[in-house]
Amino acid sequence: MHVSELDTPAVVIDLGILEENLAEMAAYCAGHGIALRPHAKTHKIPAIARMQIDRGACGITVAKLGEAEVMADAGLGDILIAYPIVGARKLERLVGLARRARVTVSTDSADVARAISDTAGQAGVKIGLLAEMDAGLRRCGVQSPDELVTLALEMAHLAHAEFLGFLVFPGHVRVHPDLQPPVLKEIDARLEEAQDRLFRSGVEVRVVSGGSTPTACRSHLMKTVTEIRPGTYVFNDMNTVAMGAADLSRCAVTVHVTVVSVAVKGRAVIDGGSKTFSSDLSRGGEGRGFGFCLEHEDVVLESMSEEHGHLNIESSSASLRIGDRLRFVPNHVCTTVNMHDEVWGVRGEEVVERWEVLGRGLVR
Amino acid sequence: MHVSELDTPAVVIDLGILEENLAEMAAYCAGHGIALRPHAKTHKIPAIARMQIDRGACGITVAKLGEAEVMADAGLGDILIAYPIVGARKLERLVGLARRARVTVSTDSADVARAISDTAGQAGVKIGLLAEMDAGLRRCGVQSPDELVTLALEMAHLAHAEFLGFLVFPGHVRVHPDLQPPVLKEIDARLEEAQDRLFRSGVEVRVVSGGSTPTACRSHLMKTVTEIRPGTYVFNDMNTVAMGAADLSRCAVTVHVTVVSVAVKGRAVIDGGSKTFSSDLSRGGEGRGFGFCLEHEDVVLESMSEEHGHLNIESSSASLRIGDRLRFVPNHVCTTVNMHDEVWGVRGEEVVERWEVLGRGLVR
Repeated sequence: MHVSELDTPAVVIDLGILEENLAEMAAYCAGHGIALRPHAKTHKIPAIARMQIDRGACGITVAKLGEAEVMADAGLGDILIAYPIVGARKLERLVGLARRARVTVSTDSADVARAISDTAGQAGVKIGLLAEMDAGLRRCGVQSPDELVTLALEMAHLAHAEFLGFLVFPGHVRVHPDLQPPVLKEIDARLEEAQDRLFRSGVEVRVVSGGSTPTACRSHLMKTVTEIRPGTYVFNDMNTVAMGAADLSRCAVTVHVTVVSVAVKGRAVIDGGSKTFSSDLSRGGEGRGFGFCLEHEDVVLESMSEEHGHLNIESSSASLRIGDRLRFVPNHVCTTVNMHDEVWGVRGEEVVERWEVLGRGLVR
Repeated sequence: MHVSELDTPAVVIDLGILEENLAEMAAYCAGHGIALRPHAKTHKIPAIARMQIDRGACGITVAKLGEAEVMADAGLGDILIAYPIVGARKLERLVGLARRARVTVSTDSADVARAISDTAGQAGVKIGLLAEMDAGLRRCGVQSPDELVTLALEMAHLAHAEFLGFLVFPGHVRVHPDLQPPVLKEIDARLEEAQDRLFRSGVEVRVVSGGSTPTACRSHLMKTVTEIRPGTYVFNDMNTVAMGAADLSRCAVTVHVTVVSVAVKGRAVIDGGSKTFSSDLSRGGEGRGFGFCLEHEDVVLESMSEEHGHLNIESSSASLRIGDRLRFVPNHVCTTVNMHDEVWGVRGEEVVERWEVLGRGLVR
């Protein structure tokens, strides 16, 4: 089927670009001896997780238990849930998961870690633990090397959980291609201090898990980091481009839409709004709206209703007509993919793949 | 099951409030002789559409063909698709739909209307048409009574479509409870002018479809309006409250979440972010973040990652602990419900209903 035969709105993945992105990150990690544990939140598709493993990833990362279950169902065998597991219902599911996959959980709380260990003990399974330190995003994570040492020691003494090391998420760090941000050095120094103190206490830190897509290829400059968890690199998006972490030519996902109204002067309406793109604005501060139009770069996706994308075409020479098809690179590809039950893979203009987004919407 | 046994995040509907909201709008419409054709985009659940019909609604409104199909599958028999149907694939599905339900489509384009008529003729079905006039939102709709008359006349002369009347969406109009916004009078005057001119040409305007939730209960002040299409009124949300169109006590939907991290001073993290609430900010300009916390009104849902809600508790006396459950009224309930495959209905604190959100994510 030709890509123009896909009814719109449709989320389309260029498989050639996807493969390039996968190969580049795999080569970077292999070249620097860093383990790659990609965050599957970007694609939520077991087949793409499998492509990552086939290219050398040591395992995958997910945020929620439901995502981990979908990935384990598909045979993925080594899963980090980079999210605290809280509550009896989730602990039950966690030990169920640990019976069929190697599972690790990160948390900043000794209480959460203890509950995991206790439940694992009752069920006769082993669950890995990473102690999370805040890298400066102020989301999750203990605040100092002191607190990290205390938390790690408590984890290391649990009977039925295995303390593996540290996790940080430098999600607030924006990396200019020509600069080495000092903030990564500071994070590294704090991790190293905690690691040294634990070593002197006889506790080994085997894993230090770091890295989001923007900082991924600076990871070799951090002495402590043993693995990274980039997610967005598989597809890239306008946020990644705005941060200078990828070129537009390396954006693998486009949303194909159709013009459905041109009745208002200076405007046109496409058949995708916030239910198609998500309402995430560009973080890059470019002020170019909710996505980038490949056909006409002066057409601005200025605002969105749920099902209507409002194009501002006042400064554009494009003369859009009802029925015209356009392609937009989304601002935040993870949240865009999460709106859809299915995505399409193309080689050139030929549709060769249909994937269900099996991990979509699994909030628990 | 007690509501506290639901694992989080969970979208919970208070059925008593839902029924009050349904009854109030039904009574308003009955009292003023206005037909009620609720927009199902807010709930996307056939069982709730059925509750609306049972209370006197003349039919339902949807935005997308996929939503119409789900509603027709569930036996809803009179469906307005308030969205232009463009393209061969969708036209095929439209006539399939018209074989099992009474279907009407709105558009601002004679070309779109003609394609619908032609396809209906080939299939031997009849499809209703409404001519859309822009009420000032600058989204879809022709711009003047002149253009509306021209479009309506073209529609009226189509062989296999039935011209029924006009559609407007005053979605930009915010109604203060004590004011009668002059903009509704202006819209009414423009519709009346077009209606009179069509009458003199021998074309009857039987339906004038208007009204969103904020303007719904001002509809009797518009002489032309015969039916309204409010959606949000079933649940209400913080946007409706901010506009003065509902009280907090009439918000039927809450999102139940659990605190999963308190490691960062002045902050706490809940297990729902933009994948749970959607990223739609409050339109009311209250600056209170992405939802309203019923337990602690000084706890601000300040920002969101995909799976993390970032609470600012600096100005709050709440001392949150990991495992605490909180309830948030979302800003925009339509987009929140659209993130979820299932929602729960409660009477008091007892869970008595589980509904699949069958119309979720149907973007085509």
